[in-house]
Amino acid sequence: MKIFLAQQNYHIGNFEHNTQQIIEAIEAAKKQGGDIIVFSELCVCGYPPRDFLEFDDFIEKCNSAIDSIKAHADTIAVIVGAPDKNIIKQGKDLFNAAYFLADKSIKSIVHKTCLPTYDVFDEYRYFEPAYEWNIIEFKGKRIALTICEDIWNLGDNPLYRICPMDQLMEQQPDVMINISASPFDYTHDEDRKATIKANVVKYKLPMFYCNAVGSQTEIVFDGASLAFDKYANLCGQLPAFESSLQSFVLKEDGTIDAPIIEPASRMPDKELNPETLEESLNIAQVHEAIVMSIKDYFSKMGFSKAIIGSSGGIDSAVTIALACTALGAANVRAVLMPSPYSTNHSVSDAEQLSKTLANPYDILPIKNIYEAFLNELNPVFNNLPFSIAEENIQSRTRGNLLMAIANKFGYILLNTSNKSELATGYGTLYGDMAGGLGVLGDCYKLQVYELAKYINRTNEIIPVNIITKPPSAELRPNQKDSDSLPDYEVLDKILFQYIEKRRGPKDIKAQGFDGALVDRVLKMVNVNEYKRNQFCPIIRISPKAFGVGRRVPIVGKYLS
Amino acid sequence: MKIFLAQQNYHIGNFEHNTQQIIEAIEAAKKQGGDIIVFSELCVCGYPPRDFLEFDDFIEKCNSAIDSIKAHADTIAVIVGAPDKNIIKQGKDLFNAAYFLADKSIKSIVHKTCLPTYDVFDEYRYFEPAYEWNIIEFKGKRIALTICEDIWNLGDNPLYRICPMDQLMEQQPDVMINISASPFDYTHDEDRKATIKANVVKYKLPMFYCNAVGSQTEIVFDGASLAFDKYANLCGQLPAFESSLQSFVLKEDGTIDAPIIEPASRMPDKELNPETLEESLNIAQVHEAIVMSIKDYFSKMGFSKAIIGSSGGIDSAVTIALACTALGAANVRAVLMPSPYSTNHSVSDAEQLSKTLANPYDILPIKNIYEAFLNELNPVFNNLPFSIAEENIQSRTRGNLLMAIANKFGYILLNTSNKSELATGYGTLYGDMAGGLGVLGDCYKLQVYELAKYINRTNEIIPVNIITKPPSAELRPNQKDSDSLPDYEVLDKILFQYIEKRRGPKDIKAQGFDGALVDRVLKMVNVNEYKRNQFCPIIRISPKAFGVGRRVPIVGKYLS
Repeated sequence: MKIFLAQQNYHIGNFEHNTQQIIEAIEAAKKQGGDIIVFSELCVCGYPPRDFLEFDDFIEKCNSAIDSIKAHADTIAVIVGAPDKNIIKQGKDLFNAAYFLADKSIKSIVHKTCLPTYDVFDEYRYFEPAYEWNIIEFKGKRIALTICEDIWNLGDNPLYRICPMDQLMEQQPDVMINISASPFDYTHDEDRKATIKANVVKYKLPMFYCNAVGSQTEIVFDGASLAFDKYANLCGQLPAFESSLQSFVLKEDGTIDAPIIEPASRMPDKELNPETLEESLNIAQVHEAIVMSIKDYFSKMGFSKAIIGSSGGIDSAVTIALACTALGAANVRAVLMPSPYSTNHSVSDAEQLSKTLANPYDILPIKNIYEAFLNELNPVFNNLPFSIAEENIQSRTRGNLLMAIANKFGYILLNTSNKSELATGYGTLYGDMAGGLGVLGDCYKLQVYELAKYINRTNEIIPVNIITKPPSAELRPNQKDSDSLPDYEVLDKILFQYIEKRRGPKDIKAQGFDGALVDRVLKMVNVNEYKRNQFCPIIRISPKAFGVGRRVPIVGKYLS
Repeated sequence: MKIFLAQQNYHIGNFEHNTQQIIEAIEAAKKQGGDIIVFSELCVCGYPPRDFLEFDDFIEKCNSAIDSIKAHADTIAVIVGAPDKNIIKQGKDLFNAAYFLADKSIKSIVHKTCLPTYDVFDEYRYFEPAYEWNIIEFKGKRIALTICEDIWNLGDNPLYRICPMDQLMEQQPDVMINISASPFDYTHDEDRKATIKANVVKYKLPMFYCNAVGSQTEIVFDGASLAFDKYANLCGQLPAFESSLQSFVLKEDGTIDAPIIEPASRMPDKELNPETLEESLNIAQVHEAIVMSIKDYFSKMGFSKAIIGSSGGIDSAVTIALACTALGAANVRAVLMPSPYSTNHSVSDAEQLSKTLANPYDILPIKNIYEAFLNELNPVFNNLPFSIAEENIQSRTRGNLLMAIANKFGYILLNTSNKSELATGYGTLYGDMAGGLGVLGDCYKLQVYELAKYINRTNEIIPVNIITKPPSAELRPNQKDSDSLPDYEVLDKILFQYIEKRRGPKDIKAQGFDGALVDRVLKMVNVNEYKRNQFCPIIRISPKAFGVGRRVPIVGKYLS
């Protein structure tokens, strides 16, 4: 039996685009004699469709797309993901479903049982869990078809009380197929292989696993679809971060007619769960994820050009380099906006960066505008001493200049704030926190340095001076980040324990960090929730990013 | 049996504050010979605690609070809401629980079955639903204790497959107690009475219903706790929008020793579900909700003073009036920032407003700053024609001035954008969209006018000219809202159908609205999701507000 995995990049709600690429893959697979072609979870509408699911009109459009697709399921069977109406008047009105299309009709509909409702996932908001389980018979094969999270209910503390594969095993299936929309984070690629292998080992069945690829605003889908034979050999892995169509021949004995690409012994035997910041990062993967996300955000929003404030610091340098890779240097406009407190090297370093990258840049000093603000505010400020207010005026003047050029010419402003700054509130709302997409918002400062080194791996794209000088906002004379923040070497490690590992103050202090410092850092994180609440979407590369996956009360008074 | 309902205003994560007011009410009820005192859902930590629940440290603090409280449950039984750890290694790690405390110990713990996971609610993100149901026996009474949503699973399309009251009826209870954190919206006060009455009618048992009061960022809890006797007579209702402690004597025959305050025949028999914008608004309630929310936001954030941009238009006038009621006029600073395109009446109307309200105000013209921006941008803009870019520079200059004063003196900037503007994207990010709290963000423009009339119900607080003149952003010569937007009379009705009623284009057009206009409006809503995503929390007064309760993909391509 010849099985195709179609790993594609969907656009949420863009039914025409999604249906067309699904049909193209079906036709391609038919030409190559495919028996079954497998697409990813909710591929018809794109994942996650969120509250679009609450519109009957949206569900009707999903159904129309299924109608168009099933007309092509003649010599081949097609597995696609789409919502399915719950016709019983009890429970939520929809199921998250896999449609098995054959003979130009809907042969079977399978419902998802385990509905992820944590981090960025909200599936129980929309869907009723399955409560019936049936295998699908096709060309003599007994297929156990599941959807994403359905195969993740393993381990000694399973999240769900029902395990759908256990239910399906009662009907003696001989192959597992799983359709997924499983997001990337820097632990998840390995986790995913380990989880799929654990299913194969547990049920002693081959597994075909099809994941989506492409970014949907903040969420990155990396693809990397997989095929395992029944002996838990990894027989195929589709590329990460790109679309792909690949076939496998499943033989009668449960082996797969494909090279075994990786000995089982090299596979991680359990989920990766890094305990410290240092062991967390696969920098090449993170780089690819961010580049794809920038590209997808622009193309899905209908834009092609980015504008970025270029300060001569590490964050803007890395952001500009990433944007040039994603969009092409000609489409990335850097704007240098020195203030009276900027150092000379800031301007020269920023210029050097854009000269190396060959991207256009402007220099617009903010001195005159800043002084116009101070003038107008003079009767109100009344010679009070310089404070954070004056710092923020400079930052917001830059935000205004960048947005003005963006509005005039049709750029999207890319934001350069890193995760350490966002965590501690070390940034100005409507100033350096402005922008449409947070490129580095899920990378701690130390990780931004790692990215810079990676970008410079073959030649010096980011001037070394930018990497080696001490970080500064340059909003008052001789300012350094270390005036306001603990050293990033310590800060980032505490933040990682609090944010990624969700450890409380007692546990973090027990790791040896200074008690007063831990309290101070946790308080900074919690009192600045109101700022992050107004921040743009952040490309998610960790298991716990700020944004939709981390929901914290603003008026809360906890550790603050 | 003397039962107290304690309707209190909690602060999320502020265990000291919450525990103290709980204990004070217990002691007060003990002095008056109470048998049971009932608090609201998750009162120990405040509702909604959101991702704080993912910290073991937070759960430990809840448990410590329960320990402190139970020491006071000696001559009285105490019902409080708090999370409870799921000790079975299957399913989520927590339950949403009601603790029954008596004899200084935990006598019973009841778990919530129906976990709301829609709109602003995310309970299945944290909690496992109950799968065992038991009544509590106390002083000869058989109590069916449930939590909020547990009694909402009625009607012909119930949201949950299990109805906990049906389960409890097998054990012959003789009284129902429900602890809630049930938010206000302009339909919900009536809905709630109807739902509770429907339970009383169905199960033929008296019901004591205790709701929380006070606002938690965007979510408004209105209190209005209720007592029904077994004959479905409403025997008591605690006040809306304020804390209250009130007792009822439940007699052996299921009647309540209290005046019947409203004949059952006057109660709505089913949920209020307004089909059109016109029938939706109870303006006095909305006014109270917004005033309480402003007050609570400031006190819970530890602030006392607001700053507001005062344009001479209706939105800022209503916002300033509401803020003066909430915080006192002396604590509300209005800033008039005329641009070269502002009309004279804008300034004089805004001045008149602040003179009437007696709140401080400043006049800071933006002309010089605006010109400094244009000067600096001249080499980039290169004499291109005036566009939205120049409009936004003015708006963002105002945002910068307001934030500068806020930063200098410790104000919170209140935002004045209305729901019609937010829906259509008719506002400037980082400009008039700046602020810490969206006061009118859930009120359509027509509803803002209703609020203005209500504020002027006894005397002219808002100058009539502000109410009667055509709305304008005044960012270019002779600009009117109607240049860019359909008339609010039509626009707001289409928006209501799309946002509150979640009707698709076909259904809205079938109501008689112009087809091209409907398409245009829905597209405006959908393409501007990226702007709303960066907007501050909005005081929620409708069943569907922008913000945490409405989750729409940014890169989506649906009706856009």
